[in-house]
Amino acid sequence: MAKQGNITLKELSKRLNVSVSTVSRALNNHPDISPATIKKVQDLAKQLNYIPNLFAKGFRAKKTNTLGVVVPNICHIYTSTILKGILTQAESLGYRVIISESKNNEEKQIEMLKTMIQFGVDGVLMSLARKTKSMDGILGILNRIPLVLFDKVSDKIPCSQIVIDDEEASYNAVMHLIGLGKKRIAILKETENSYNSEKRFSGYKRALAASNITLDDTLIFNAEAVSLESGKRITKQIAAMETKPDAIFAITDNAAIGAIQTLKEHNIKIPDEIAVVGFSNSTKATIISPSLTTVNQPGSKIGATAVNYLLHEILNPKENMVTKTIEVKTNLVVRESTFKG
Amino acid sequence: MAKQGNITLKELSKRLNVSVSTVSRALNNHPDISPATIKKVQDLAKQLNYIPNLFAKGFRAKKTNTLGVVVPNICHIYTSTILKGILTQAESLGYRVIISESKNNEEKQIEMLKTMIQFGVDGVLMSLARKTKSMDGILGILNRIPLVLFDKVSDKIPCSQIVIDDEEASYNAVMHLIGLGKKRIAILKETENSYNSEKRFSGYKRALAASNITLDDTLIFNAEAVSLESGKRITKQIAAMETKPDAIFAITDNAAIGAIQTLKEHNIKIPDEIAVVGFSNSTKATIISPSLTTVNQPGSKIGATAVNYLLHEILNPKENMVTKTIEVKTNLVVRESTFKG
Repeated sequence: MAKQGNITLKELSKRLNVSVSTVSRALNNHPDISPATIKKVQDLAKQLNYIPNLFAKGFRAKKTNTLGVVVPNICHIYTSTILKGILTQAESLGYRVIISESKNNEEKQIEMLKTMIQFGVDGVLMSLARKTKSMDGILGILNRIPLVLFDKVSDKIPCSQIVIDDEEASYNAVMHLIGLGKKRIAILKETENSYNSEKRFSGYKRALAASNITLDDTLIFNAEAVSLESGKRITKQIAAMETKPDAIFAITDNAAIGAIQTLKEHNIKIPDEIAVVGFSNSTKATIISPSLTTVNQPGSKIGATAVNYLLHEILNPKENMVTKTIEVKTNLVVRESTFKG
Repeated sequence: MAKQGNITLKELSKRLNVSVSTVSRALNNHPDISPATIKKVQDLAKQLNYIPNLFAKGFRAKKTNTLGVVVPNICHIYTSTILKGILTQAESLGYRVIISESKNNEEKQIEMLKTMIQFGVDGVLMSLARKTKSMDGILGILNRIPLVLFDKVSDKIPCSQIVIDDEEASYNAVMHLIGLGKKRIAILKETENSYNSEKRFSGYKRALAASNITLDDTLIFNAEAVSLESGKRITKQIAAMETKPDAIFAITDNAAIGAIQTLKEHNIKIPDEIAVVGFSNSTKATIISPSLTTVNQPGSKIGATAVNYLLHEILNPKENMVTKTIEVKTNLVVRESTFKG
């Protein structure tokens, strides 16, 4: 059997021998149409699996009750948690969600943003591609549709931005290490000055300063991507140092786990010789042994908050666009990689 | 500044003082329109960030070059890997992808499927919600749009179905254990007879039969969801058995990891006393210690294959719908939980 395509109003009208306008009004329970006709039309529509044309409806009402999401990498665990929050909150408020990926590519990001607009979504939630250099394309689109940024954001785009308190989170993580008597604390961060990496580095520096520990350039390690692999590679360098750090603060859990695996290979005792702290509280943090002390990022709260701010904008379209940064609180989860119970 | 909505053809026509039809044809490089006018129209469209209305275009051409995806749980790691395969393959073939979640809910599944059709996608890739009991809704939609199922499939739906060779994969995993001298092999599977769980159980039974090992009902453990928690709970029961199994085959990595953690707590030696095998080769499998022997499911190949079959159907709409099951090969990755190197 070949595909028949969607049933049209015309098809329904032909089969029932009534006008298209009657069919349309009957489907919408219009008071001018008799209950008998309404029943006849709706019964046939149901029997033939008629699906109302959302575009026609959407364009008329300017509402599709659908939110679009654009993320750099749909497979990233933290992104998954945020998506969960977005999906749950949107559903509870009667909105559907469609998701797309920019593959951390600036052109693809604009393409997907335009696709979302073309599909007539009511608003877009977006986390920026890693190397988004030019904001022109996004700014050109910004006056078309409500937009809220989350996670990977930019203050060059005047809209609501939902992030975690990266600076405070890092400060607390490093203060925890200092409280345990650690003094030579290495940091694994991004080479490129991404928003998140910079904020986390600031928190690190503030904690050291608050504790009168001089910033030591030899303990600052950069990687293109702060991944499991770079965590391993940098920790190999650390294991080869004559005066080693007594703690490693990695700005991702993956890098922290790479660090733990490499320290174990080198028989360096965790946390006595070198303690390790990660960032994001992924499920892996409880599976690695020793388990990982890490910053818990409430991803689903970020997602839910982003939905709330977007809906506010959708429902109040006349308000002016301003950059408004909302910081969601994190907490440090202490486990065996820093503290022996 | 309030949002302006998309620029319309009418707006362009007004600004340039030409007809809407001229604008439309100029944008499509129609030969009847002079090069000067085409340039004038396209320049203004570009300057104003005009985004062509995909619906109008899509409905006319019956093509949007967009594929829709519906999955039970977007955060599931294996699903993420399949999505990666779908996104990469679709992009390389010039198709965009939008993704939605059914939340393992049958009604939501139909709603998202209808949303995809309403958005005018050219075809849909879907993995079924866990407890999809009635196929009527899906069958009603099936003659509207090309559909390919992957991962969670059903032979009640006449379409291409892309799965891994679950039965063969399980058979190989259990034969590996038997080859290591294991004879009392427990299985952790789903209570409900899901397609995948049943296939894996069949492979388990075939391996025992092929090795003249009698099926022992006391070694068959069922769980609603074969998760980390149920892996822990069942392994506690196993640790309390007088005659314990000498191996555990869990049909998910999560349950296998729960088993390893619980065996370690009970000081049961892995793999000497009890070996453990999982299923899916998630990244966690390499993070747990001892590392987990597991079936490698080539998720991205499943995704890419699903895209290929869907595009075949989109491009050959006249072919008859038949159930066609395509099995993608797996391989067993041997690690410390079964084999001491």
